[in-house]
Amino acid sequence: MTISILVLNGPNLNMLGKREPGIYGAKTLAQIGDETTAFGESLGLSVDFRQSNHEGVLVDWIHEALGRHRGIIINPGAYTHTSVALQDAIRAVGLPTIEVHLSNVFAREAFRHHSYISPVAVGVICGFGPQGYTLALEALKPHVA
Amino acid sequence: MTISILVLNGPNLNMLGKREPGIYGAKTLAQIGDETTAFGESLGLSVDFRQSNHEGVLVDWIHEALGRHRGIIINPGAYTHTSVALQDAIRAVGLPTIEVHLSNVFAREAFRHHSYISPVAVGVICGFGPQGYTLALEALKPHVA
Amino acid sequence: MTISILVLNGPNLNMLGKREPGIYGAKTLAQIGDETTAFGESLGLSVDFRQSNHEGVLVDWIHEALGRHRGIIINPGAYTHTSVALQDAIRAVGLPTIEVHLSNVFAREAFRHHSYISPVAVGVICGFGPQGYTLALEALKPHVA
Amino acid sequence: MTISILVLNGPNLNMLGKREPGIYGAKTLAQIGDETTAFGESLGLSVDFRQSNHEGVLVDWIHEALGRHRGIIINPGAYTHTSVALQDAIRAVGLPTIEVHLSNVFAREAFRHHSYISPVAVGVICGFGPQGYTLALEALKPHVA
Amino acid sequence: MTISILVLNGPNLNMLGKREPGIYGAKTLAQIGDETTAFGESLGLSVDFRQSNHEGVLVDWIHEALGRHRGIIINPGAYTHTSVALQDAIRAVGLPTIEVHLSNVFAREAFRHHSYISPVAVGVICGFGPQGYTLALEALKPHVA
Amino acid sequence: MTISILVLNGPNLNMLGKREPGIYGAKTLAQIGDETTAFGESLGLSVDFRQSNHEGVLVDWIHEALGRHRGIIINPGAYTHTSVALQDAIRAVGLPTIEVHLSNVFAREAFRHHSYISPVAVGVICGFGPQGYTLALEALKPHVA
Amino acid sequence: MTISILVLNGPNLNMLGKREPGIYGAKTLAQIGDETTAFGESLGLSVDFRQSNHEGVLVDWIHEALGRHRGIIINPGAYTHTSVALQDAIRAVGLPTIEVHLSNVFAREAFRHHSYISPVAVGVICGFGPQGYTLALEALKPHVA
Amino acid sequence: MTISILVLNGPNLNMLGKREPGIYGAKTLAQIGDETTAFGESLGLSVDFRQSNHEGVLVDWIHEALGRHRGIIINPGAYTHTSVALQDAIRAVGLPTIEVHLSNVFAREAFRHHSYISPVAVGVICGFGPQGYTLALEALKPHVA
Amino acid sequence: MTISILVLNGPNLNMLGKREPGIYGAKTLAQIGDETTAFGESLGLSVDFRQSNHEGVLVDWIHEALGRHRGIIINPGAYTHTSVALQDAIRAVGLPTIEVHLSNVFAREAFRHHSYISPVAVGVICGFGPQGYTLALEALKPHVA
Amino acid sequence: MTISILVLNGPNLNMLGKREPGIYGAKTLAQIGDETTAFGESLGLSVDFRQSNHEGVLVDWIHEALGRHRGIIINPGAYTHTSVALQDAIRAVGLPTIEVHLSNVFAREAFRHHSYISPVAVGVICGFGPQGYTLALEALKPHVA
Amino acid sequence: MTISILVLNGPNLNMLGKREPGIYGAKTLAQIGDETTAFGESLGLSVDFRQSNHEGVLVDWIHEALGRHRGIIINPGAYTHTSVALQDAIRAVGLPTIEVHLSNVFAREAFRHHSYISPVAVGVICGFGPQGYTLALEALKPHVA
Amino acid sequence: MTISILVLNGPNLNMLGKREPGIYGAKTLAQIGDETTAFGESLGLSVDFRQSNHEGVLVDWIHEALGRHRGIIINPGAYTHTSVALQDAIRAVGLPTIEVHLSNVFAREAFRHHSYISPVAVGVICGFGPQGYTLALEALKPHVA
Repeated sequence: MTISILVLNGPNLNMLGKREPGIYGAKTLAQIGDETTAFGESLGLSVDFRQSNHEGVLVDWIHEALGRHRGIIINPGAYTHTSVALQDAIRAVGLPTIEVHLSNVFAREAFRHHSYISPVAVGVICGFGPQGYTLALEALKPHVA
Repeated sequence: MTISILVLNGPNLNMLGKREPGIYGAKTLAQIGDETTAFGESLGLSVDFRQSNHEGVLVDWIHEALGRHRGIIINPGAYTHTSVALQDAIRAVGLPTIEVHLSNVFAREAFRHHSYISPVAVGVICGFGPQGYTLALEALKPHVA
Repeated sequence: MTISILVLNGPNLNMLGKREPGIYGAKTLAQIGDETTAFGESLGLSVDFRQSNHEGVLVDWIHEALGRHRGIIINPGAYTHTSVALQDAIRAVGLPTIEVHLSNVFAREAFRHHSYISPVAVGVICGFGPQGYTLALEALKPHVA
Repeated sequence: MTISILVLNGPNLNMLGKREPGIYGAKTLAQIGDETTAFGESLGLSVDFRQSNHEGVLVDWIHEALGRHRGIIINPGAYTHTSVALQDAIRAVGLPTIEVHLSNVFAREAFRHHSYISPVAVGVICGFGPQGYTLALEALKPHVA
Repeated sequence: MTISILVLNGPNLNMLGKREPGIYGAKTLAQIGDETTAFGESLGLSVDFRQSNHEGVLVDWIHEALGRHRGIIINPGAYTHTSVALQDAIRAVGLPTIEVHLSNVFAREAFRHHSYISPVAVGVICGFGPQGYTLALEALKPHVA
Repeated sequence: MTISILVLNGPNLNMLGKREPGIYGAKTLAQIGDETTAFGESLGLSVDFRQSNHEGVLVDWIHEALGRHRGIIINPGAYTHTSVALQDAIRAVGLPTIEVHLSNVFAREAFRHHSYISPVAVGVICGFGPQGYTLALEALKPHVA
Repeated sequence: MTISILVLNGPNLNMLGKREPGIYGAKTLAQIGDETTAFGESLGLSVDFRQSNHEGVLVDWIHEALGRHRGIIINPGAYTHTSVALQDAIRAVGLPTIEVHLSNVFAREAFRHHSYISPVAVGVICGFGPQGYTLALEALKPHVA
Repeated sequence: MTISILVLNGPNLNMLGKREPGIYGAKTLAQIGDETTAFGESLGLSVDFRQSNHEGVLVDWIHEALGRHRGIIINPGAYTHTSVALQDAIRAVGLPTIEVHLSNVFAREAFRHHSYISPVAVGVICGFGPQGYTLALEALKPHVA
Repeated sequence: MTISILVLNGPNLNMLGKREPGIYGAKTLAQIGDETTAFGESLGLSVDFRQSNHEGVLVDWIHEALGRHRGIIINPGAYTHTSVALQDAIRAVGLPTIEVHLSNVFAREAFRHHSYISPVAVGVICGFGPQGYTLALEALKPHVA
Repeated sequence: MTISILVLNGPNLNMLGKREPGIYGAKTLAQIGDETTAFGESLGLSVDFRQSNHEGVLVDWIHEALGRHRGIIINPGAYTHTSVALQDAIRAVGLPTIEVHLSNVFAREAFRHHSYISPVAVGVICGFGPQGYTLALEALKPHVA
Repeated sequence: MTISILVLNGPNLNMLGKREPGIYGAKTLAQIGDETTAFGESLGLSVDFRQSNHEGVLVDWIHEALGRHRGIIINPGAYTHTSVALQDAIRAVGLPTIEVHLSNVFAREAFRHHSYISPVAVGVICGFGPQGYTLALEALKPHVA
Repeated sequence: MTISILVLNGPNLNMLGKREPGIYGAKTLAQIGDETTAFGESLGLSVDFRQSNHEGVLVDWIHEALGRHRGIIINPGAYTHTSVALQDAIRAVGLPTIEVHLSNVFAREAFRHHSYISPVAVGVICGFGPQGYTLALEALKPHVA
């Protein structure tokens, strides 16, 4: 039986590939979702890939993961730096969670160096573009098998 | 005629009783709502007990309280520490408001010691679990009678 | 052909004119919207005037502006001080954006002196009440013509 | 057999009702003590109500509570913000303790937002005037019964 | 009878148009002064447009405005961030004052984000180049009419 | 009828003249008290000159001043920098109070630059040795006459 | 032979008595200068009373005091908080200097609590209005006699 | 002739051995006093061992040490972190003083890392339980012989 | 032809597997090095796996990588938080570098949240134990191929 | 043809050699100016050596350097630490500028460690007394030749 | 059988006795080592006394202590304030460790008040010169016997 | 007889001329050493020019300078900002020392603005590339002659 993983994407990630391909790459989030899902299958992981600009929706989805998914990969976007609610949600469901960022946030503005998510994550992967999702699937696998 | 009170619960409080009963107790939010409502009736207060994970929904509900409710009890959860919007909403409607927390937030991480809600609240009650809601109803009564 | 401008209003601005007219004036947001729209027409600008208490909805609307509007005027209300997501959304669509505040935020509490929006805005106008919107339309015009 | 509770009041609370009744109310501390004691009796709690302007005397009294009282309610007044000694005393005796403030300290000067007592208290009640003491008795009861 | 407005420019603004036209535009301060004066006339406002690199001279001019001018528009340049004396001068004369900056100071170095002038200004306009002066005249008009 | 003034001296001031005369002068506190009292008489002011090393005793004495004295001169010594209780006591009795320091505290360690007493004092006099008390009597006179 | 004292007044003090008499009193600076000069004569001190809004002029005057005056009384106004140059000037001439403020700066905004002048002054007198100058003359006398 | 040493213990140290023996050990302060005194005798030092919960009493005792004792060992307890008065008292008497803590304060909460006593002490010994007193006697001996 | 990668390990990592296996796992650094090398071969990457407790030696090795290796994976251990020299060395050689930590440093002490290495790294991987090295090899491959 | 260099001296430097020769040396500023000018001639540089206590005058002189001088050496004195206007002036004229201090400012008070001038200077020379000016001429030469 | 103790000395301690005997005493480190070793023998402790200026060497020696020594006394010199690596090394070997400083570091510059070693030490002894090593041996004995 | 000067270079300076010639110039450190040595000879100074990436080695070399060299020129590279050990070493040997930086560190990242070396240096020279060493030799000469 396949193991189900929830992959969450936060605000503005739906804009990937639509502007500034020089910076964020030419792939759309849908393409990244497809590649991540395909890679998951090769590991025996079923990927549920979603995006929302709404902090509350992301919290709802994390709650609903309880009983449906075995682990979470989250690219919280801007909510990384401002959302205590996401931290509490991840702690509340207790599922192993990996934090992913496409860019190296530590090389950007100072307010992007702090994450409310990191303290409740198994680990953090940042700076590797879309490859970050597949690395995260590999890293998550031993925690959900 | 009974006096109507809006009792608001912020993000993740819907998870009460579902995990970690050792920490947060075994009661679900629905049970707490029932007990709070029953206790309100004994004081002649009609309780409208709600929860949302969405900051915007909580702001909407506070606005709608104008003309419907005479006071507000709010457990803002994680939004306590990050939401200027909730502060402004409470100030905008001008209804007497009491801030409640189940746990003693001052004995937790430093970022939980600051509240955007407290400066616009009549008072604060924290650390007493579900009893906090009934204490808040008693404390609110002289302000709405 | 008229040029379309998106005018966004953040949390609690829907309460304008409903309470504390001594502070915020007696005009409702609908009245301000009508006046702003009428003034825009005189400049050859078509105004789409909206309000939401939901951070996610504001982000969605900014995304949708791509291809529909030529510029944005935003009064982010309380999200000015807490929303990295709005900053990222404005940067993502790359439309010229002007930040407006009805009151002089620099004469209020210290936490209102910092804006996540200003670094990605063309400019800032604050302290002039509803007139701020019409000044912003004039200021935006050379950037969208 | 009744359960004995120590109610401590810190510096300047002896001035209640003597000046500025518009702010602190017209009740003297003696009247509040009488009401608190009477309410305690209705709960089966015997109240020992005291006040001192001396940090050392308050520490002495907390020590003496060991073996005499089952819980402590403390309004530490100005020592809330400056006394590590009171924190250590409460920790040393290990009795359940509730912190009470008549006014909403979070709506006052910034240096009043920090409390050395809160981290060792069961919970905090502030902003409700003399009613704070009776609410604290109710809140303390399940911890001493 | 026309209404007289004092428009003050602080240090280094006399260099406008002399270097770095790519950044600050090709207009000299004299040209901006002429345009601002002409626009003022169209609003029935008589503009007295001045510049000084001397903090003390700017303070003197603000004092002399009492009885001569009905309002002040000030682009304080670098003194924005360092001059308590200008704040006190504006407060002393009590004339409605609008703060203008050519560039968006909030998108520059951190020490340019703080203004000693803003707390005593009616409002702030920044980021719109020379147009900032004409917007300020419009914004000032209702305060001096 | 003479006007009575309470002159309070905080911790360690009883050591004056006993050690380090090169720094603090050769006068004992008793001698300073006599000179201050004599000078007060010349102004028609009756001086009650006291010293204590106990914060609580100083608070008690301020309370007892109500109805007995018309003004307070206080050299709070080390409690200047640590005692919120003394601030609250002075505010509670509402008597005009002048803060005096023998040495120029602003030329000493940084922690001596902050005073909890200054915000509730009429004014501050520091750096003039025992003469500070007689200057304070002169300064206090118009506030108690 | 009389001893000459330089009394310096910084920016905006020339506005005294011209506006807001409720706050700063009805006396003009000229009247205060006359009273201070007259009082100085009674102490055998010749007073040279000046005011400038220019930091550089104040520095020049302090330099010129060398060989002409025996001591300095300075009310630095807003330059108190921003002028390292005045600190250096006072240190350079080495004349005994007393810092005076009309209002109690410690009861005003936080940025007014810090003085660059205090560390090089003999002492500080603040909060006593125009009387501050005569108290300062008395305090300065033993240092210049 | 024996050399007399004052050993002072601050707030809450009288509770040693009464609660939490697992943390602070089973010895009472009286037992520690006896052992310290006996050890002192072996070094030719007469020990005067005292405890008070009152800051003012500790200050009084330090003053009284002048002429009676040749050195001081002080475990200031919670006053370590809050008492400028104790610092001033030690400086005032000028006796060599050693600061002792039973536990390693640097491994506890951040507010316990700062000591007002250390800058006026000969040295500091912390983390060795009751042995700290005998180590301090050895360390003090060369300073009082 | 294989591509050579330098894998550097900083201070104390040589102790892996020797103590606290419950925390850091039972594998020694040598075993991790063997596994990493083997995995590298499967990707066509030749791994040079080293460890030193000396900041200077690590700097030397980074310099020597120029011309020998095509990329660097570094687990800087404690030097992560203190070494500007390592940052400068990585910048100086300009090789793509990935920062790895075995544990989730963001869930540990605050001083471990800051990294001097992150701003010059392609990306960061932390929290996955020895798997972090193999994930880093995968992430590095597109940058060195 | 000689190359002209503007050498500016800020507040209080006119006092050199007049007081405290032990600290600042016995040379007057005029003597230093003569020596600097002579040394400049030996390098083929024509030196225009000036001093003012007025921030505005220094700004004026920097502006006037455009077209007259090829480089600037500035000892900004106290304005080093407080003048954003001087930073902007140097940036506005775009001439290569070297910052000089007679004393080692980094070994003095903390507020003297920050310079607004350094970020726009080619380099900084401090601690070498009058020799600093001749070193600066040497250092400036390759930038103006 | 004797118990072996490693006594480590950090950077610059090899210079003891070579310069500034007025401050650090006339004893060389070799003499202190001999005395410490002799005193250790009287306690039945074998002392291995070493010094290095190299952080990495100190880390290596701590590692090598495992299995050879039963406890560590370390005077980390300047590395006290900057070395996370030493903290990690001490934690890694888990041997009881005592931190010693010759001078009272708390009476020196502020950056010397923080120690990375203290949180992992049994205790701290500072301010007693070479005697600190013998006190540390006594203090360490109960932890290694 | 020639005077010997030790010129020390810290971490990464051995990479000069090997990469980024656009920033750091095309000269290697060896070439700079040769030029500096030659220039020293023209001043009658014998230069011992060295480089190490090891903090401990640099400390050792400073110690060995005692008796061999008369002064030190140090470009501490990254250790400027982190090494208390180098500060202590320079203080320990007491030789006149000049701090040199090739680039203007004050125009780089904020963490490069603080130097542990500056407070113990005679002076600082930064921003002039390799010329900084020759300027330093000139500046050092009057201190070692």
